[in-house]
Amino acid sequence: MIRLAVIGRNFVVDSMIEAMKHVPELELCGICSRSAEGAREFGERYGIDPAHRYVGIHALAHAEDIDAVYIATPNTVHAAQAVAMLESGKHVLVEKPAAVSAKELGHMTAAAKRNGKILMEAMMPLYTPAFAVAKRLIRNIAPVRCATLSYRQYSSRYDALKQGKVENAFNPELGGGALTDLGVYCAAVAEGLFGTPHRIGAEAMFLETGVDGLGSASLMYNGMMADLTYSKICDGARGAEICGEEGVITLDSVSRPRYVTLRLRSGGVRRYDGDRLDLERFDIKRLDDDALASIELDADGHTPSDAVQPLPTMTHELRHFVHLVEHGSVQLAGFDLAHTEGVAAILDGIAHCCDIKHGAKK
Amino acid sequence: MIRLAVIGRNFVVDSMIEAMKHVPELELCGICSRSAEGAREFGERYGIDPAHRYVGIHALAHAEDIDAVYIATPNTVHAAQAVAMLESGKHVLVEKPAAVSAKELGHMTAAAKRNGKILMEAMMPLYTPAFAVAKRLIRNIAPVRCATLSYRQYSSRYDALKQGKVENAFNPELGGGALTDLGVYCAAVAEGLFGTPHRIGAEAMFLETGVDGLGSASLMYNGMMADLTYSKICDGARGAEICGEEGVITLDSVSRPRYVTLRLRSGGVRRYDGDRLDLERFDIKRLDDDALASIELDADGHTPSDAVQPLPTMTHELRHFVHLVEHGSVQLAGFDLAHTEGVAAILDGIAHCCDIKHGAKK
Repeated sequence: MIRLAVIGRNFVVDSMIEAMKHVPELELCGICSRSAEGAREFGERYGIDPAHRYVGIHALAHAEDIDAVYIATPNTVHAAQAVAMLESGKHVLVEKPAAVSAKELGHMTAAAKRNGKILMEAMMPLYTPAFAVAKRLIRNIAPVRCATLSYRQYSSRYDALKQGKVENAFNPELGGGALTDLGVYCAAVAEGLFGTPHRIGAEAMFLETGVDGLGSASLMYNGMMADLTYSKICDGARGAEICGEEGVITLDSVSRPRYVTLRLRSGGVRRYDGDRLDLERFDIKRLDDDALASIELDADGHTPSDAVQPLPTMTHELRHFVHLVEHGSVQLAGFDLAHTEGVAAILDGIAHCCDIKHGAKK
Repeated sequence: MIRLAVIGRNFVVDSMIEAMKHVPELELCGICSRSAEGAREFGERYGIDPAHRYVGIHALAHAEDIDAVYIATPNTVHAAQAVAMLESGKHVLVEKPAAVSAKELGHMTAAAKRNGKILMEAMMPLYTPAFAVAKRLIRNIAPVRCATLSYRQYSSRYDALKQGKVENAFNPELGGGALTDLGVYCAAVAEGLFGTPHRIGAEAMFLETGVDGLGSASLMYNGMMADLTYSKICDGARGAEICGEEGVITLDSVSRPRYVTLRLRSGGVRRYDGDRLDLERFDIKRLDDDALASIELDADGHTPSDAVQPLPTMTHELRHFVHLVEHGSVQLAGFDLAHTEGVAAILDGIAHCCDIKHGAKK
């Protein structure tokens, strides 16, 4: 059993705790907040023993009966908190973006390796069955020539912003903005599918608070390019489109992919429902053609009536985190860390192109 | 009756002549080819009197019983041919892109004004009912914050290219490539909906022949940006997505739009079928809410069973050309020319960003 404490009270924490119910190896044992009031309120909501309601990072660092932490605080404090937790011998699952720069991420990965503890970014889409299906299907359309990965969502906090109230997600001092909040998903999916680009071009549109409200980027690879488009101030209806010489693959969402469609130029359309994959521990290596056939949808593209009830999307990343912790190997986490470093480098590149600064007013 | 001659034997000419059957004011009276053999072959195919099978531009220029020409030759020769036709007193409908640079287009527009003749670019989507519906609906989602206009289509000529045969569409000396062939549609729709951008960023991927095989561009406006993505070496499934703070409008295609979808953030989805608009001469000013309601699709987004048989898409641009010629006013064509100049400026900007050169080896 992995005894886990949560740092932060962002609304994403509620979703994570809901997903935790589907991961029996994880036990929600503690919560940590900046204030006694926050710790009390959050502790009561989730029935956490008062002895495990920590006020401030240092109190949590000294707790010996906590094995791992989940960090969901503002982006600019991820690095310091993660390093403190790793140094005190705890495994760390940190919300995206793991850090606001590749340099900060470097401090975190160094601390993980120094202490032999797991550091993993909670990059939701990468651990979903649908992502693995898409990655597996790419060979059918090879060579890939271009892709558009899009995540546009009108933020509920934008209404507050228009009324003059700057919440974290729109606060540049806390690493807010469209790139770190939504663009990071597009970058992670691009990195996961295509690797590290050799050049980046990007544009952004800034809001009055100084954060980027929306933007787009072109990641240039050998023989292909991937366009990322993201916005926090308007909705969009599209996920990912991956275009190869032999066909097109689409994902319904970049952040929470479930449905994958394969259109071959030679004719024929196939759709897959990632939530119908019946794999106890999801492993792309086991995703052979037979497994793919078994999750195919019916002919008109709808989910069959016996469709499974999907797990909360975050369940997949939690299961992967448990897998890493249980095998107790930093090397095992190396693949995930290399990916996170790749994403951080892409975000650095985009921020450089657009002159996006995080925490600049500190 | 407008007596029209066609210059060029591109496959698009067949589509145009098919569309002409729906425009009684136009009479196909002549064809013009570089060679006697080409003129004979094409003339026979369309039953053109041998006296009106012109070999070479100058022969056509001297023909007095031709009122207008349609130019569908390689892009790099549009300007010289259009100027010759305008100088000889003929109205000109020219395939997209009207010219391979704003400078060349300037020579063409000057010739049109000097001779009091109509010059119009055959920019298919802009004259469709669906485009007008989308433009009309934008007020419902205002302010628009971003858009993606995408046209990706695996070219049948790409197979030839892979076998070592360079056809016009992939020949840089003739102004081929993804930007001039497909990106121009994205640029034209962006210009038509949003006007002239104040800044452009762009990336391209080049093929061995020296043309751009695909690319993307970001057009920056005050308070919004529009991303264009286009490719000639792989398919894509998407048209246009226009995102405003109050909702999202999608078009099924950038080049041949028919279906328009409006999703309001406040709830509700409405779909429109542009081909059900019952307007004799399509005029966006007459497109009031009642007209829009009349073409709405049924609740599940399908076309009602009494769906009209659509006209060939090119019919709309031909009708507009006839309207301009019949009213005989260069001023009347001023709006169209200003738009074409805007598109040429966008193409110039993208070509500059990506170092795309047309006819460089001449």
